[in-house]
Amino acid sequence: MPEEKPKVEDNVVYIGRKPSMAYVLAVITQFTNGAPDVLIKARGKAISRAVDVAEIVRRRFLQDVKIKSVDIATEERELEDKTKLNVSTMTLVLGK
Amino acid sequence: MPEEKPKVEDNVVYIGRKPSMAYVLAVITQFTNGAPDVLIKARGKAISRAVDVAEIVRRRFLQDVKIKSVDIATEERELEDKTKLNVSTMTLVLGK
Repeated sequence: MPEEKPKVEDNVVYIGRKPSMAYVLAVITQFTNGAPDVLIKARGKAISRAVDVAEIVRRRFLQDVKIKSVDIATEERELEDKTKLNVSTMTLVLGK
Repeated sequence: MPEEKPKVEDNVVYIGRKPSMAYVLAVITQFTNGAPDVLIKARGKAISRAVDVAEIVRRRFLQDVKIKSVDIATEERELEDKTKLNVSTMTLVLGK
């Protein structure tokens, strides 16, 4: 069931609506596979979960991993009726 | 109606469940009153709103304000039945 797995590509884990632990495991897998850094990306309400994921990884599972940077930004999205919506985004970089 | 105002003390704005704009105004008020830096603090699900507040302040209202730092951490809370719960926290520092 590939749709059950969190979206992962090129050391980036995108946070969606799954339980935090799904993303925690995705991050740990990336490090286990030799990634020096893992980026955790989230938009809107998923930002809180991104912070939970980063904290769980570094406190409970990989104590040698540190939060190297936290960046926040705004993305403009255009809806079907052409109205524009601003959505906050966050990128957390975890590394050893 | 003081209970309608966001909680503000010593250049710190605590993000709760009010609409983002209430906290945006609280942050702008702090800068207008001469604060060099304003801290935005949030826990749990309010973290997403804290990011929205920071982004709205610096993009829409105070273009000379920058995000000086973003820190995330975990707070341990003890419930009445003595079980312990971890809650993620975030502190954003805005300054000129």
